[in-house]
Amino acid sequence: MAGVEGEGSVVEEVVVVENNTGLHHNKETNDQPPPPKEERIKSNLVLRKSDGRERSLSVSYQPDGETVFVISDLDDAAAHISDTDPPITDLNLQLARTYVEDARDGRHSDFKLSERHLRLYHLYQNIWGQCLLYLVIALHLLLALFEKPAVPGLEITYWVTMLVEFGAICFYLFRLTLISVFTPLTRFWSDTKHMLIIILTVLTFLDMVIYIGLTESGHYGVRWSRALRPLFAVNFPEMRQIRRSFRNLRRTLPDVVNVLFLFFFSLAIFALMAYKLFGERGLVWVDGRPYFSNYWDSIFDLYVLVTTANNPDIMMPAFDESAYYVVFFVVFLVICYFIYMNIILAVIYNNYRKHLKNEVRKSVYSKRQQLSKAFEILAVSSGNKRVVTRGRFMQLMRTLNTKTNPALINVYWIVLDTDGSDVLDKGEFLRLADLLNVEVSEVVDRTTFMGHFFPRIYFSTPSSILRTIVKHKLFQVFFDVLTLINAVVIGLATSDSEWDDTAEWVFLSLFMLEIILKMYTFGLRRFFKKFWNVFDFFVIGAAFILGLAEAIADEEGKSRLTLDVLLVLRVLRLVKIVGSVQRFKVIVHTISKIVPSLLTYGAIMLVFYYMFAMVGMESFQGLVKFTGYDIEEGSELYCSNEALIHSPFWKDHYCNNNFNDVIHTFIVLFELTVVNQWHVIAYGYADVTDPWARFYFMLFHLVCVIVVLNIFTAFVLEVFILEYSASHQGHLENQMEKKIQEMGLSFRKKKKKSSRVSQENLVISDSDSSEIDDIDEPWKAVGAVGGEAQGEVKVTEGASNFYPGFKDISGETDVRFHISKRLKNVEVLLQKMFEKELTEDDLGPKIDTLDQDLTDNPEYVAAQGRTLWSL
Amino acid sequence: MAGVEGEGSVVEEVVVVENNTGLHHNKETNDQPPPPKEERIKSNLVLRKSDGRERSLSVSYQPDGETVFVISDLDDAAAHISDTDPPITDLNLQLARTYVEDARDGRHSDFKLSERHLRLYHLYQNIWGQCLLYLVIALHLLLALFEKPAVPGLEITYWVTMLVEFGAICFYLFRLTLISVFTPLTRFWSDTKHMLIIILTVLTFLDMVIYIGLTESGHYGVRWSRALRPLFAVNFPEMRQIRRSFRNLRRTLPDVVNVLFLFFFSLAIFALMAYKLFGERGLVWVDGRPYFSNYWDSIFDLYVLVTTANNPDIMMPAFDESAYYVVFFVVFLVICYFIYMNIILAVIYNNYRKHLKNEVRKSVYSKRQQLSKAFEILAVSSGNKRVVTRGRFMQLMRTLNTKTNPALINVYWIVLDTDGSDVLDKGEFLRLADLLNVEVSEVVDRTTFMGHFFPRIYFSTPSSILRTIVKHKLFQVFFDVLTLINAVVIGLATSDSEWDDTAEWVFLSLFMLEIILKMYTFGLRRFFKKFWNVFDFFVIGAAFILGLAEAIADEEGKSRLTLDVLLVLRVLRLVKIVGSVQRFKVIVHTISKIVPSLLTYGAIMLVFYYMFAMVGMESFQGLVKFTGYDIEEGSELYCSNEALIHSPFWKDHYCNNNFNDVIHTFIVLFELTVVNQWHVIAYGYADVTDPWARFYFMLFHLVCVIVVLNIFTAFVLEVFILEYSASHQGHLENQMEKKIQEMGLSFRKKKKKSSRVSQENLVISDSDSSEIDDIDEPWKAVGAVGGEAQGEVKVTEGASNFYPGFKDISGETDVRFHISKRLKNVEVLLQKMFEKELTEDDLGPKIDTLDQDLTDNPEYVAAQGRTLWSL
Repeated sequence: MAGVEGEGSVVEEVVVVENNTGLHHNKETNDQPPPPKEERIKSNLVLRKSDGRERSLSVSYQPDGETVFVISDLDDAAAHISDTDPPITDLNLQLARTYVEDARDGRHSDFKLSERHLRLYHLYQNIWGQCLLYLVIALHLLLALFEKPAVPGLEITYWVTMLVEFGAICFYLFRLTLISVFTPLTRFWSDTKHMLIIILTVLTFLDMVIYIGLTESGHYGVRWSRALRPLFAVNFPEMRQIRRSFRNLRRTLPDVVNVLFLFFFSLAIFALMAYKLFGERGLVWVDGRPYFSNYWDSIFDLYVLVTTANNPDIMMPAFDESAYYVVFFVVFLVICYFIYMNIILAVIYNNYRKHLKNEVRKSVYSKRQQLSKAFEILAVSSGNKRVVTRGRFMQLMRTLNTKTNPALINVYWIVLDTDGSDVLDKGEFLRLADLLNVEVSEVVDRTTFMGHFFPRIYFSTPSSILRTIVKHKLFQVFFDVLTLINAVVIGLATSDSEWDDTAEWVFLSLFMLEIILKMYTFGLRRFFKKFWNVFDFFVIGAAFILGLAEAIADEEGKSRLTLDVLLVLRVLRLVKIVGSVQRFKVIVHTISKIVPSLLTYGAIMLVFYYMFAMVGMESFQGLVKFTGYDIEEGSELYCSNEALIHSPFWKDHYCNNNFNDVIHTFIVLFELTVVNQWHVIAYGYADVTDPWARFYFMLFHLVCVIVVLNIFTAFVLEVFILEYSASHQGHLENQMEKKIQEMGLSFRKKKKKSSRVSQENLVISDSDSSEIDDIDEPWKAVGAVGGEAQGEVKVTEGASNFYPGFKDISGETDVRFHISKRLKNVEVLLQKMFEKELTEDDLGPKIDTLDQDLTDNPEYVAAQGRTLWSL
Repeated sequence: MAGVEGEGSVVEEVVVVENNTGLHHNKETNDQPPPPKEERIKSNLVLRKSDGRERSLSVSYQPDGETVFVISDLDDAAAHISDTDPPITDLNLQLARTYVEDARDGRHSDFKLSERHLRLYHLYQNIWGQCLLYLVIALHLLLALFEKPAVPGLEITYWVTMLVEFGAICFYLFRLTLISVFTPLTRFWSDTKHMLIIILTVLTFLDMVIYIGLTESGHYGVRWSRALRPLFAVNFPEMRQIRRSFRNLRRTLPDVVNVLFLFFFSLAIFALMAYKLFGERGLVWVDGRPYFSNYWDSIFDLYVLVTTANNPDIMMPAFDESAYYVVFFVVFLVICYFIYMNIILAVIYNNYRKHLKNEVRKSVYSKRQQLSKAFEILAVSSGNKRVVTRGRFMQLMRTLNTKTNPALINVYWIVLDTDGSDVLDKGEFLRLADLLNVEVSEVVDRTTFMGHFFPRIYFSTPSSILRTIVKHKLFQVFFDVLTLINAVVIGLATSDSEWDDTAEWVFLSLFMLEIILKMYTFGLRRFFKKFWNVFDFFVIGAAFILGLAEAIADEEGKSRLTLDVLLVLRVLRLVKIVGSVQRFKVIVHTISKIVPSLLTYGAIMLVFYYMFAMVGMESFQGLVKFTGYDIEEGSELYCSNEALIHSPFWKDHYCNNNFNDVIHTFIVLFELTVVNQWHVIAYGYADVTDPWARFYFMLFHLVCVIVVLNIFTAFVLEVFILEYSASHQGHLENQMEKKIQEMGLSFRKKKKKSSRVSQENLVISDSDSSEIDDIDEPWKAVGAVGGEAQGEVKVTEGASNFYPGFKDISGETDVRFHISKRLKNVEVLLQKMFEKELTEDDLGPKIDTLDQDLTDNPEYVAAQGRTLWSL
């Protein structure tokens, strides 16, 4: 079952054994012969694959690094590096590497130009350091679980949590100190995010000292700085994406504020009208509260009506009096709900789009400017222009990433060198970052474990027939239908009936059989590449084992709940059926592409949730408790608070919607985000504290629902339209990708004909292949050099599109680029959309701090409207 | 107080007195001398203004209609028509006129080419006939008020309403017969809307006969055809706008259906999971209903949760059991509410935009094709191309509209004849429809009634000072502040306090004074042009009179309510303060421009409401009655239906939400549109009938909220973005408008300097001037020839922008074109956006029936995404 290589990259561990044998081992296929030099060092790179096997790679090079020969049994191609340029200093090389890396990863390099600072910069950017930062941030935020008011059973005395917090802040300060060392001083101090971290640190320490003082002297202390915790996270450079969304939100705000002012003004007028119209008629709400008897209550109640949460209750007392009063509410709802809320969405959408584009533009410029810096460092003069030679480029790539294998570097060079001049000019070099972001994989051979170790059995006729059956489309259809039937049976089954237990076992056994057959046919590795296979394996396997355990022990109880959950999860398998229906594919894929980008908004929500949660817990903890609703019990009633007698809060059984620990608080905030009945919760807490407590809930609605959720909607709208149109057109690739395709180096999706089986022989060492395998039509490596164990047709179609100046080098290398039409990342899509608008070498204005706004083209707004309509 | 001319047009009634005096009365200012012809007929057109005065206009022309001289004391310019072309037949002229009129009004002409059919077509298009149609449609729809179940007190026996309906349908058939006569037969029968009317008629008659038969034989009959009534209205050509929106809705639907299917599929899976997870735990809702105990109930309850209406109630029972169960609901809400609902909006928005553009494109093509037909009729050969001569053009314009005065025709000619060739080629002629749609007004002199009849008093020094004060900005500011204070006082006043009555009188007197002063200064006519002045006049005046009446009669009661309403309306005056703040202007104006276009969606809503109302009334009438909630009273309880005991419907006092007459039904449907608590109403009616009754409410939500309201949101988004960007750029005018401006013939908005007072002398006979006057910065007629009674500066600035080939003829005529940047109509804006994309003479594909879709450019979808991002 081996043969499928490690995830994501071919080489997982490289052990360089320098043994200086002097042996000249040249199998390279390049036309250019190696220059005859005397002294060569040969290194054996041993590639240790995840399956335990090792492959050796021979690299012979001269000590001064001018020529390198790579010989490997992995692939046919070997890199050839030849350079006669003046040698480059190590510092410069490292500098160039840093710029290129930052451009690739979308970072904004900002360090002093010295070896020491560069080393510190690399230390700071170290992946483990960043992981540690995320861990510390998570830990810092999770402290809320243990601090008073803690989740029951998790409470820890305050000095432990405070010590942890102290440690976290020290770590933040350490990272900040690192930044301050390698960043030019003026840049460091002019950066608001650094200042904010310092201010936050001071505030937190101040709060700690005060809290300790108060608590030790027996007073009640409030840890108010806890609400500021998420701000630490947001202000680290690593949280670029989130900070960018925040910035977008902040810039969208001023225009929204105007509409909001108008909205509240209208609200105030309507409230005055309602107050005067209904206030003195002696009407009451259903719960006996007086009806519009107070101006501020009128404003609040009408605000609630705009959220529709108290519709139609708010109009019923007036409606019972006379149907004509309804006119007031209809007019109010039409203006303040249907029109204003849509206008707010429109304003947010309009501004969001503008600012989003600005952000994208800036990140493209930033990327180009960094590559341009790297270019200036690496370039040598050639005639009247500056170019990067092949040698320099190879040196750069070697420092760049240990994972990059020499064959790939060679391919990169060929791809980048568009005009075949054997040097890169600036325009060509600027494409490097895009190229590095294209997913690369190598075509490797594949045999299953069974085929490897028991070939006699595996390749026997019955086994072949079995495998053909399993691979057949109808096999999948059969089990899809079975899944559907199973779901229906699950739906029909009741706890009383006996027959469903038997049916359950039949289904379970069948699904187990399916899993085993698939494992046998496709091999374990390939089987577990598919998400749904893994899902099936665990759900069905667990159900099988738990069912067996239950049958043996014959005990009901906890395992029943687990079984139920597993039963329920099995229903989810239905989703995969829908995903394979052609007409839903575009939508399903669009949704699945949008979802990851939504995480950013999840993070923004989390920041606001956390801040509101801390404030809410300090204000409302312990006021409302869940003690059951059984009146006969005679225990504590009305959520342990007499103030809630006869309140809708109590009547609706909302006692669990309390702020007594951080979990309950987050659930309450989620309920408030969904909006409905939020006024009941608000009035409940107003009853147990003060009428002004409603302001907290109103503010939450304003921030999290009206602003953040509308921005979220704007984002979904924009991204959906982009993704949807991208999936309808084929030509989103930039020039780089076209070149790659013309060279026959790209993965292609092809209409399947007879080539279906040949796909079976080509398995891609690609982390994303689960998705690829999900597609009915097989993906193929064009012109692939895969192992042809079963002697099936080699596919070379699609690569024949020769072009003057481009070689189809697909036969020479196993390297393939993934150019997915369904793009990984929305930002990449946005950048591609935008790059078309820029001339190739346009570096844009000098972006010193990314926080600055690019001056907007004055005709932009005008053009925006017009281009919307251009054919 | 005279001197300001009638609304909308200069001439309100034209009495043509042909007296053939032969007197040659030539005062024309044109350079070209009239060709010396012998026989001339002089007509005196007497313009009867709305103020009762008459002005005479002399038109001398030859019987063959080749030359016309217009002399009037209204304006200095006179039209000169000279033509030596071959005479055109009257039929052809009428044909051309019809095409031009149809192009102007956006109609789609479709008639046989004969004099008789043309006359029938004109008869059909007659404005009174159309008004009658609207009236009949309104009457037909309003029948629901009187039919069983009628609004209490309005019930009429069924044969009366049926007779009215019969009459209405006969009228529809009459109109349809007209159409069938003048439309080519094949076109008539291939038009779905005509077929639909015939089918609807047959169905309605069938229903009537069945109903009469059943009722007379003592059975219960259902007038099911009542639900079809709004379809009659929609299928008449007059309802173009609504039908277009319907078409757009219909075309958007197929893509939405895919998402909806996925949505319901997810819903079904989640329902199955909920059913299995919670169904057998013995949990109950707050009202005692079992919790997820039935699969179909689970689907319905989760559907309700997607509308957020039962959040968080639905999760409370599970939450009370364990906080972990909340995860299920959070996941469900995130997927089905936050993601799916936004995706549905995105899909609708995406498709809506595409189809909207298609519609706009079609209407532009249709307009051009009609003008092109008119051109072909009118054109004569001149050299190698066909052109329309001045004479032909004049003839056309004269037949076009009785309101058009000869000076205006002359101006039209000059404006259209871009190249000064004195003939119109096709490109120039195609602009005619746009030109005719530009609002035209004439500059006239203005003296107030007082100034006219009591000049000694009016122009005396104290009066002048007074008028200067009133005109001063601070005067307005003072009363704005007073309005605000008044609102505060109204808010503070309670029924007990005495002081507010006095304050009320003080305010009322002050506002009366304001009104009188304004009337004195600006004159009645100008005063009443402003919406807010009229509003003030009626609200303050009525309050004053009613207050006086109350003070004299000293009785409380009915007048108290009226006074309260007036008090409340007075609060609305605050709105005008906001409208004058600069930063809100764009938003306020955008909203005010969007609102009229929203009426189309109001009409669509009405259609759906009516259909659902008829079905709902037949199904649920009389089941629920409002009888008060006073339990002690002992009368009929539980909304007269024992099935509602302990139901939330009864507990929430929803008895008035019934289907007992059409008014209550519409209110209930509106409540359902606002969504919240709709499940309570749905469960209420399920309790009194059958659980499947909930399907009616679910369907209503699906149609009216998910589809129609989202399309409404899409419309607001699109239009807001267009309007907003249009108000930020200045150059939305088409070439026509540029030309007009270069000729100094347009109204302009200018920064005020010393010219403020001069504005006072120029009042525009314009139906829209209320809006113009609302602007702080005065609008000015550039180069106006107004009466300069007080010897103030004549304004000629802004008109000096001479251009080769264009004459600045602003001095020669009083005609001015209104080119408003804030456009009348969204459709006009859309057309302008789009016209830029078309080449000038592009007539598009032959559009035979407007119902056909234009074949979409295959690259359109692709381009759409890209251009969205183009700078």
